[in-house]
Amino acid sequence: MLGVDYPLYQPGEVGRVGAEVSPYTRESLGITYPKVDVDTLYQAIDKAAPAWGRATPDVRMGICLEILDRCADQLFENAHATMHTSGQSYIMAFAGSGANALDRGLEALAYAYKAMADVPATASWERTFGKDGVAKLHKSYRLIPRGVGVVICCATFPLWNGYPALCASLATGNPVVLKPHPSAILPVALFTSVCRTVLAEAGFDPNLVCMVADTREEPATVALLGHPRTAIIDFTGSPQFGAWIEKHCARKLVYTETAGCNSVLIDSTDNLQAMAKAVAHSLCQASAQMCTSVQNIHIPAAGIMHGDVRVSFDEVAGAIVNAVNEYLKNPMVLCGTLVNDTIVSTIDHYRELAHEYGILLRDSGPLTYSEFPQARTASPLIIQVDKSARKIYREEIFGPISFIIKGDDIDGCLADATENARDRGAITSHVYSIREEFLNTAVDAYHAAGASVACNLVGMPINFAAAYSDYHVSGLNPAGNACLTDLTFVTSRFRIVQSKRMI
Amino acid sequence: MLGVDYPLYQPGEVGRVGAEVSPYTRESLGITYPKVDVDTLYQAIDKAAPAWGRATPDVRMGICLEILDRCADQLFENAHATMHTSGQSYIMAFAGSGANALDRGLEALAYAYKAMADVPATASWERTFGKDGVAKLHKSYRLIPRGVGVVICCATFPLWNGYPALCASLATGNPVVLKPHPSAILPVALFTSVCRTVLAEAGFDPNLVCMVADTREEPATVALLGHPRTAIIDFTGSPQFGAWIEKHCARKLVYTETAGCNSVLIDSTDNLQAMAKAVAHSLCQASAQMCTSVQNIHIPAAGIMHGDVRVSFDEVAGAIVNAVNEYLKNPMVLCGTLVNDTIVSTIDHYRELAHEYGILLRDSGPLTYSEFPQARTASPLIIQVDKSARKIYREEIFGPISFIIKGDDIDGCLADATENARDRGAITSHVYSIREEFLNTAVDAYHAAGASVACNLVGMPINFAAAYSDYHVSGLNPAGNACLTDLTFVTSRFRIVQSKRMI
Repeated sequence: MLGVDYPLYQPGEVGRVGAEVSPYTRESLGITYPKVDVDTLYQAIDKAAPAWGRATPDVRMGICLEILDRCADQLFENAHATMHTSGQSYIMAFAGSGANALDRGLEALAYAYKAMADVPATASWERTFGKDGVAKLHKSYRLIPRGVGVVICCATFPLWNGYPALCASLATGNPVVLKPHPSAILPVALFTSVCRTVLAEAGFDPNLVCMVADTREEPATVALLGHPRTAIIDFTGSPQFGAWIEKHCARKLVYTETAGCNSVLIDSTDNLQAMAKAVAHSLCQASAQMCTSVQNIHIPAAGIMHGDVRVSFDEVAGAIVNAVNEYLKNPMVLCGTLVNDTIVSTIDHYRELAHEYGILLRDSGPLTYSEFPQARTASPLIIQVDKSARKIYREEIFGPISFIIKGDDIDGCLADATENARDRGAITSHVYSIREEFLNTAVDAYHAAGASVACNLVGMPINFAAAYSDYHVSGLNPAGNACLTDLTFVTSRFRIVQSKRMI
Repeated sequence: MLGVDYPLYQPGEVGRVGAEVSPYTRESLGITYPKVDVDTLYQAIDKAAPAWGRATPDVRMGICLEILDRCADQLFENAHATMHTSGQSYIMAFAGSGANALDRGLEALAYAYKAMADVPATASWERTFGKDGVAKLHKSYRLIPRGVGVVICCATFPLWNGYPALCASLATGNPVVLKPHPSAILPVALFTSVCRTVLAEAGFDPNLVCMVADTREEPATVALLGHPRTAIIDFTGSPQFGAWIEKHCARKLVYTETAGCNSVLIDSTDNLQAMAKAVAHSLCQASAQMCTSVQNIHIPAAGIMHGDVRVSFDEVAGAIVNAVNEYLKNPMVLCGTLVNDTIVSTIDHYRELAHEYGILLRDSGPLTYSEFPQARTASPLIIQVDKSARKIYREEIFGPISFIIKGDDIDGCLADATENARDRGAITSHVYSIREEFLNTAVDAYHAAGASVACNLVGMPINFAAAYSDYHVSGLNPAGNACLTDLTFVTSRFRIVQSKRMI
């Protein structure tokens, strides 16, 4: 597909845009996409919308299921596209913005179906009022979509929210405009094509799903968000922009998933190496560019219990650094690349801050991938600090930068971590302890801060959020106002009107 | 209860307030209620909240069901209280702010239960990742309430939204503050007492349900809405204040039910007298102070078909006026009284406008109730206009004022009525036609405007909204952003956090 005009033809095309560069080859993909006049596009969407709004939930569900099935056929293509735009490793691209995201899409469809099926199609009703005899009514109910749903996809896992948000809006009758990040358009374009093809095959107007591509220099997002026909906004991306949308678009339906200061709290363990490996995996995976990546590792100054043996703070910190180094012996599949140059500058910035605020436990450096000598990479930067560095570790930092934070004691560590979750957001939080009582205390404390929590996870990627059993994002702290996916992710996307006729 | 300090004792009481006057006797009730310092009250609520949030959904459901059952025992007392504050007739007070409202409360509980039951308590999960063997996790889910729910009750039917809103918030774990209208505090106080008694009997802190009474001169509502612990707002009242809340409290959960320009569209009928009687009933019932009262009656200039016979515009209008006059022979049960003096001024104002904009078809005058010679009453004012009076009939007017609007033809009438519903709101809309094709067209047009519609209702009070089968308020037009009651009325009132532990 390199160097082609991507075959997507939408109303209101006024030119072509596209400036994607592979983080692996550092070469331009040379692919262009429609640059559209938003008002003209929305006029076409307005024409497409009524027939879709009138279609039965079963018809819409069938089409959405078909879309997901076709996307499953497209997983390998999508994985390559995601790898060379988002910079994920091939396997992470396949999973995180592919198979796992499709699961989330299917889950959103299940919720949409459940919510729509809760409304009956008709009802017979009768009642006697006073002396007037029995009044008999036939009642019919119709589901009315809210308007255009704009789905803002992020740079690193474009379809993680793309599949579920599109499914939630489209199944409930709303047209969808997909807005890819300028550096990761191709995966979204592939998805858009599938949607348009399936819709057209089923006899619907393909403009029910459109894509608006843009560049960093000339962004289109705010125009889409502010358009009067935009009724629903699904956003995945930075906390800053997420907060802006929550504030400025508050009268539309807004679903955000952003990021926070994800923490690990280490009280004790029965397997120091396994625990260190689990934490190190999170620091390395996707170069810590995931919403579930760990940033802040809280360890008491006096160290922790490893079974019956006390292990010093330095030993625990050292075990984590060593585990990271072990992973870096074969880094490409785990670490992938950096999505943009900003992260390189961020690493440089925190390397400087390390000297000011603490101790540089592990410096970041380039990773070497023989297959891709030009790849933009960086190994994890790990900084040891204490609470005097709160100012810097309470910011959400995007990229492979983490803090090992020496707390006064375990209660202080817990207070710090949960306060950060409450004030700055958290999508994942981890506790390691062999003390049942402490685990219960910690779970309660994280929950009180509006955060979910995982206990003693080893032998698996701790960043992993499972469809069908992990409610991803609580909506109770600054890391997002919505959950992927639960009932309330879909119930407001349509409304009910009814007619009743006297029989 | 006249002349007593109402026995409600809440933290933060700094005095007593209460200035209710019976619209029937025009005498002060002389009842006082706690005047509270809101911050002190919220501190007490903060202490009460955690135990309620931790209670299981089943426990909370049981307590809410018990509250409704006790309220059912209180229906006659509540009817008297509502009659002598809101001014409803005894039977309307019993039904509209009593039995029918209790049904809505039960309906909200059913939805709350359904939404909470959708989240499992626990899950067992396992998956094999690469060479690490099977990872097995035990997952637990906890429902987290959003915060304090403030329920703003209206002057005319204080518990119509009071029961369902309280049930929706309380069942899902949120403390509730009831905010009665200054002229109708007693029914809300009775409800508050029931809630507090049942909560205390079940071992919970009664401050989970509080009431903040105020006066017109010193209103407390905005302080409650703006309080940082207020997370949920349920409002029933004027479109103006509803719109203000939707705009200024947009970052909280806001559920509004206000009012609009409810319309009747008359194309044809097979029973002119029955139709005229049905419409007249709406003009008279509760002196048209209901959110479902009809205001605008659209009739084509050329008249309508009555079976095979053409009937002139004037004859149809005359039939409605005559039917109103017939009801006024025995008005007390149907019309009740006016909730305040403003409505009297409003009637005077529109009597003047009638001469400027059209023809006064029926003047308003006092109604005589032998039992209550001092009652504040007014019979329906009916004004004939054409489209040149759009400016005045497109406002929602609270009280017994209606317009019979001469349209160019039935399509013009339909366009006018549906445009008004879309732009100015509608909670009920009525169409009378013996032409099946026209009924379908009209239903589609009202639905496209975001309005529900009733066809050919006769022999029953057309204002009636039935629990369990009428979705009250569509949320798609300016007459409110929420429905009493559907799934989305409850799903956002709680969030989900989870913990997972490796086995």
